[in-house]
Formats: sequence, C-alpha cells, structure tokens
Amino acid sequence: MAKELKHLTKRAENYSQWYNDLVVKADLAEQSPVRGCMVIKPYGYAIWEKMQAQLDKMFKETGAQNAYFPLLIPKSFLSREAEHVEGFAKECAVVTHYRLRANEKEGGVEVDPAAKLDEELIIRPTSETIIWNTYRNWIHSYRDLPLMCNQWCNVMRWEMRTRPFLRTSEFLWQEGHTAHATREEAEEEARRMLKVYADFAEHWLAVPVVQGVKSATERFAGALDTYTIEAMMQDGKALQSGTSHFLGQNFAKSFDVTFLNKDNKPEYVWATSWGVSTRLIGALIMAHSDDNGLVLPPKIAPIQVVIVPIFKGDEQLAAISAKLKPVVEQLRQLGISVKYDDADNKRPGFKFADYELKGVPVRLAMGGRDLENNTVEIMRRDTLEKENVSFDGIVERIEKLLDDIQTNIYQKALNFRNEHIYECDNYDEFKERIKDGGFFLCHWDGTEETEAKIKEDTQATIRCVPFMFEQTEGVDMVSGKPAKHRVIIARSY
Amino acid sequence: MAKELKHLTKRAENYSQWYNDLVVKADLAEQSPVRGCMVIKPYGYAIWEKMQAQLDKMFKETGAQNAYFPLLIPKSFLSREAEHVEGFAKECAVVTHYRLRANEKEGGVEVDPAAKLDEELIIRPTSETIIWNTYRNWIHSYRDLPLMCNQWCNVMRWEMRTRPFLRTSEFLWQEGHTAHATREEAEEEARRMLKVYADFAEHWLAVPVVQGVKSATERFAGALDTYTIEAMMQDGKALQSGTSHFLGQNFAKSFDVTFLNKDNKPEYVWATSWGVSTRLIGALIMAHSDDNGLVLPPKIAPIQVVIVPIFKGDEQLAAISAKLKPVVEQLRQLGISVKYDDADNKRPGFKFADYELKGVPVRLAMGGRDLENNTVEIMRRDTLEKENVSFDGIVERIEKLLDDIQTNIYQKALNFRNEHIYECDNYDEFKERIKDGGFFLCHWDGTEETEAKIKEDTQATIRCVPFMFEQTEGVDMVSGKPAKHRVIIARSY
Repeated sequence: MAKELKHLTKRAENYSQWYNDLVVKADLAEQSPVRGCMVIKPYGYAIWEKMQAQLDKMFKETGAQNAYFPLLIPKSFLSREAEHVEGFAKECAVVTHYRLRANEKEGGVEVDPAAKLDEELIIRPTSETIIWNTYRNWIHSYRDLPLMCNQWCNVMRWEMRTRPFLRTSEFLWQEGHTAHATREEAEEEARRMLKVYADFAEHWLAVPVVQGVKSATERFAGALDTYTIEAMMQDGKALQSGTSHFLGQNFAKSFDVTFLNKDNKPEYVWATSWGVSTRLIGALIMAHSDDNGLVLPPKIAPIQVVIVPIFKGDEQLAAISAKLKPVVEQLRQLGISVKYDDADNKRPGFKFADYELKGVPVRLAMGGRDLENNTVEIMRRDTLEKENVSFDGIVERIEKLLDDIQTNIYQKALNFRNEHIYECDNYDEFKERIKDGGFFLCHWDGTEETEAKIKEDTQATIRCVPFMFEQTEGVDMVSGKPAKHRVIIARSY
Repeated sequence: MAKELKHLTKRAENYSQWYNDLVVKADLAEQSPVRGCMVIKPYGYAIWEKMQAQLDKMFKETGAQNAYFPLLIPKSFLSREAEHVEGFAKECAVVTHYRLRANEKEGGVEVDPAAKLDEELIIRPTSETIIWNTYRNWIHSYRDLPLMCNQWCNVMRWEMRTRPFLRTSEFLWQEGHTAHATREEAEEEARRMLKVYADFAEHWLAVPVVQGVKSATERFAGALDTYTIEAMMQDGKALQSGTSHFLGQNFAKSFDVTFLNKDNKPEYVWATSWGVSTRLIGALIMAHSDDNGLVLPPKIAPIQVVIVPIFKGDEQLAAISAKLKPVVEQLRQLGISVKYDDADNKRPGFKFADYELKGVPVRLAMGGRDLENNTVEIMRRDTLEKENVSFDGIVERIEKLLDDIQTNIYQKALNFRNEHIYECDNYDEFKERIKDGGFFLCHWDGTEETEAKIKEDTQATIRCVPFMFEQTEGVDMVSGKPAKHRVIIARSY
C-alpha cells in the first residue's frame, strides 16, 4: 500500500481532523490565501457539477427557470426588510471604492481615495432584497404569477470560524425565489421544494434526512416558516443540508411588489426562497466515508468505475487492454463514467490506494493470470470486498453492482441514523447522552427560554419539528410544562 | 399584430437603439439598480445555458477540468505581474470592510469602521494571479503537467460606459488557465482553444469569425500573444468574441511556479489563458436579428419550435390538441425543445408577434380549417416564410427545417461578412469607406505609430493579423513603409 496516501487520521481518533484531512488528501478543496475562502479543486468540483446537473433538472421539472441577478447589492436595500437585516446581514464584504492606482512611493498598487462610491455596495449574502426589488417591475397581474426563478451563484458571509464546505466565507449555492398569488400556493411551493431537496439527498447522495420545520429562533431572517432537511453525520451530529422558506408578504411589502388580482384589486405578492450549497459536499463526505477515504454513492461519483491493468511490459499491456477496452466502451455507452488507468509511472498498489481515497465505487483489475483464466478482480469501495469473477458478463455485473452499492450506502446510513434517534423524557439523561451524539426526540413547551437553556447547558439546538413521526402531546423535559409535540434536538455543524 | 410588442426601433434608423430595445423587449436582460450591472432574465439566461453546455463539453474533450477559485483577490497579488496590473487591473471593485452595523441616528445600516481589512481585497477582474498563486502548490514535476483548469464564474471591471451583454461591470464568463512543460505545448494549447471558440461560434452560433493574432498594443496585459476571433455585426463593426492568450513564463515567474523536468532540473512553467463571456449573447443578437426581433440559430435557441393551436372554445381546442400533442411528444423524443402554447388569455396574433420577437426558429399553427384539411401552417423565423403543408410527415419536415435554418443563418452572415471585407491600399479611400463599416485588409508596417494614427483619424483599430488569408508583403498605406502582411482594421464594439 502506498503509505504517503494513507496518513489519514482515523475517525475514532479525531473525527474533525479526519474530515479536514480527507478534504485535502482526496483533492476536494484547499484553503486559499483569502481568509475563509477555499479553492474547490477539480475532483471536488466534479462532485458539485453532478449535484448541480441533477438538482437543476429537478428544479426545472417544478417550473422554475434560471436567471442571474447582480453580485453587488446597494447597502440601503439591506435595511428595507427589518427582520432580514437584523437577522444576519451584518457580516458582509463591503465594496467602498472602484479604482486602484499606482503607489508611487512603495510600488505596487493602492486604493485610489478619489474613487469612493457614494453608496457602499455589499457582496450578496443572499439575494432576496435585490430580487424582490426586480420583481416589482416583472409582476403586474395575477397572470404574471407564479414567478419562479433560481440562480446558481457565489455568495459571501464573513464567517469567523470556517471549515471547508461546511462553513466558508464565500460559497457556491443555488437560491430559488418564487412569487405567488396566494398564501396557500406559496406555502405549497416551500414544502414542494423541501421535498425536492429530501428526494435529492436520499436518492442521489444516499443521505437520509429528517424533514421538518424550524423553531422561531432558528428561522431564516424575514421568514414566517423555515423548512429544513437535517442529516445525521457519523459522529451523531446534525448537518442542516437545505432549507426552504415561506416568506409571507414581508419582502413584497418592503419592496412594494403588488399584483392585480382577478377582481382587478391590488394585493401584495406571497414569497418563498430555497437553497442548497456546496455544504452538501460536506454532508456527503461525513455521512459515508471511512478511514480509507471517501465513499461516494455511484450516482454522484465523478468516476464510477476505474479499470486498472496490471502488466509487465508493453506486450502484456496490449494483450490485457485488448480484452478490457471493449468493456470500457460498453460501460460508457450505458452512461457509466469509467477511467482506464494504464499509466506506467505509478504502481498498482499506489493506484488502488488513491482510488480508494477518492471513493471510486467499483474497481476492476486484471493481470496476467486473470488473462489466462478469463477472470477479473472486482472490488466494491463501500464494503472493500474483493472477488475474482469470470470475465463473461462483467458489464452486467458492474451495472448491477453500482445499483447495489447505491442502495447499500443509503441503507447503511439509514440504519445508523435510525439507531441514533432516541426518545428522551428526562433532562438529566439527555444531558448525559447528548455527549455521544444522536438525534433526541423530546417534548418541547414551545418557549425560547427552554430552547436557550438547552443550548446553554449542552450546545445542542432544536433542529426541527419533524414531519416523519406521529406526534403526541406530553411534558417538556426541561420546564415540566405541557408540550404539544416532540422536536429533534442535536448538536450540529 | 400586437402593436405593443412591435415598438422596436428599425436597424436602418438607429442600429444602436435597435439593439438596446431588442435586449429589453425580447426579455433577455435589463438594467439593475447597481450601476453597470444587469439582470439576465430567464430567456436570456436560457441562451447562456445552452452556450455553456456546449462549450463545457468542448473544453472537457480537450482535457480541461472545471474548478473554482476565490472571488476576492488580495490587492498585493495584482502588483506581482507588472505588465498585467499596468494593462487593466485599475478599474476594480475594492472590498475594504467586512461588517455593517445598525445606524443609531439615521436608522438602517452603515459600515462598521472597526471592521476594516488589513489588506484590501479586489473582486476578480480575471483570475490569473490567484490561480497561478495556487498552481505553485499543485505543480512539482513534469508529471503534473499539463494542468488545465477552467472556471465558470462572474468577474467585475468597473466600466464607465456600459451596454447590456457587450460591456457591463459584472459579467459571466469562463476562464481557462493552463500550465505546460514547454513553450511549444503552451502555444499549441492557445491555438487549440482559439479553434474551439471559432468552431463554436460558427457551428453553434452561426456566426462566422476571423481568427487571428492581436497587435502588441491590443494584447492582453501580461501575454506574449493574444489570439482572437473577430465577428462582423450587421453594421459592419467588429465584435471581439473570444480570446486565447499565450502567457509565456510571465505568471510562472511572478508567482514562482517551477517544475522538475525529466532531467530533474527546475524550470518555469509555460502558461495560457482563454475566455469567452456573456458578450457572445450580444454577438448572437447583432449578427442575425432583424426589425421584427431576434433571429436565433436553432442549435442555441431555448425554444426551437412553438406550436400554437387556433381555436374557439374547449371542444375545438381538444380536437386540435389531440392531433398536435403526439407531434410535441415525437419532437421532444428527438431532443427538440418544443413549447405548446394553448393559453387562452392571449390572441394568436399576439403570440405570433411575441415568438417572432423572441426568435423561435419554427412556428406551427393549426386552426379549424387545417384540422379539416389535414394541414398545418409552418413559419420559419429566419426568412419569415409561411407555408400551408400537409400534416403527414410534419415531424421529419420540422427536423429538416431546423437544419436548413441553422445553415441558412450561417450562410447569410457569412455572405454579409465576405461582402464587407475589402482590400484597401489607399489611406484616403480607407478613411472615407470605413465610415460605412466593414473589415479592411490593409498592409501594416508593424509600428505603434501607424496604429495610433489610424485610431486617432478614424476610431478604427487593428483587430488582428488574420490567419485565413494568404499574405503577401506590401507597403503600409499610412506610412508608406514596407509591410510584411495585411491586418484587419475595423471599428469595433
């Protein structure tokens, strides 16, 4: 085994360090010279592209269209929706000047003080304000509704503590912004998009999620309701993986967006917004990967199958390749992405370790003996099981194996998640057990005081009121007051 | 005809106003509240998405991979490559602060003076500097080369005079940045990508282009050679539509990027960069469109076929739809994008005018009489020719028609371009004729003085030394000095 690739911290030793190591060693991303901003390397970006392609298709199936709105937002826009700015718009990158000039004394360039903007511009932390300012001109009548735009773009929030993919100052995301004639339609849209996110997480990322609604404290700034999908990582912590907001008429009122209804009377428009980001790559890594590296579900893996001939000299390589190349072609025609790695400047052991690290779901290897015996070695990354199998029917076998791996990865994550969801009715017990992670289903009296106390005592937060469990009334484990339902409480990223 | 859609300035009246009108009326883009920045509306963005999809495929076929580098660049990076900063890096958006705070006196928010950055950050005007700073850590040996990354992103240059798509402060583009072991490989890459751009422009946008190399004056700041594709607009002006730069070792030296060659000796890496932007949408509009609106080549049209039933009442609609819907399905199965517009809140005349304005290549309409006669009306947008044809075999007819339209649009633009390329050897004649536009093939003595005089006298510039013409030596029409070759001189956007 190639030792240089294997210096990966073990999960049991230090889960957090394991994650950071893996992001770098699997060539997903690295720190940039700009504080809190990362470079997404080609292999990491290829995963993002696969996510984008599938999500984009799903968005368009709901009727959303893509568009592009400006990166910079006038400062005054952020003041328009009071709760919005109060909530999170403070830590922003601010553009104050528009020109550099030569620095005569010290060389290089300096900011030209004469080129000061009259009004500062903010790099979008999210685009509700500028989009609703635009929608005012696009919406006149009920015939213009619903209006459903999405944009794929970069956003910036000046984070103090950053971690690759999970929390960075600049990140890539998509933000959908929809406008509707009625409250019901907008609420339906917010829930529809939550379901799109949940379907995507489960069927493509193989990450089971809990769908639910946030408490008032955890809502998006300016929303009436924030829906969320919460995934469980292997350390039992929650990762908020996507949110969909019912915004009521808040932004329509702040930006004066009205429409004439069928009775020709003006009404304020109802709004939603919804987004997922490169954070999903973090979820993918932390949900499935192991001490050997990434484990990628086949549907999202940039390389689904790697084929490695093991050879001495050109003649043997030619003989093995003659047998394997048609398989490469057949797999590609099935839409499976295959890498044929016959590079002669790396040993097979090095290649194997590298593809394990990168999470390639299926590895095929064929050497001289295999060639004689009409066999091939097949390895599945999720279980690391190796088998020597007949070469006949290998294409069908691989096709089926990819499906099996997708299912298995999901099932494994689902079992883990289900084994770590606990009903809990005793606060002392909760405080003890939360240290080991997991999702705790607890009755909550609905007050901010209780929520704050739990956070203060345990660092855990109310992740959501989950939709998936049948709810019964009970008693809040902290306050002893009556509670309408159980919420999920967990520590989170 | 729906008059409200038809208020489009005619090209002959005011070409520039026609363009501005069309961008807005065809729902491509609009001005945003941020100076010089536009909102790209869904229909305009759909064109960009089709361009992206095809270009991305072509880039990947050359071996390039996508990645993502930070939006913000430390100010000091821009000073590192002296020519680069001298050339264009001055008009930039500068981030100086990272926090807002509540404005206690006036309400709203203000910049928090305590949150001032130690070093200002610049919104990327292009990413050579931050990418080459990153490549230093990615490149160690000749085995790491070539390294070919592309990114799709937004960039910002603080332009004083802006026009939608053609010149905006923020724009979307792709920038490829490649690193090579030898000068020859890098030069070959720069030319390869120029050819990719030319193929894309001609076969997809149906825009013929002149490939060539820029004069020293017109080179990208920091490049040893800038290759360009120059397209001719309908007013005879040139539009630089894509550039590919051979950067030599300039950036490698500035950012200390070396590799160990096969003899284990360190050498500086050779570089290229290449890019096209949303400017291509401007080229597309100005090359083909007419006084009725957009004319889009089918390969790049978001909607390739629109089908409009003409009906009175639900019963007739049902009968016509029963006949047309299978056609919609069959076309979609061929990968053709079809809109079936049976909305009853707009008259057919309004729909027709709107789809003409939006440049939908083929329009089908069927009314009661067509239904009886088993016919259908088919209209091609490029020539505005209408025909009543048999319904039988309509799918094959449409498929063929789309190909014909693509060819015809290209041929028309090619004829126009070729008719407006003139050899010219007399400066007085040149100064007179340049007023009417066109590409002038003139001998040039290679001096900056002559180049400056031509620009001063006529506003025309040397677009490139073209590759497509056989070159002969001659005499510079301005200076009377010997000239090695003819260059293309034109006014440009």
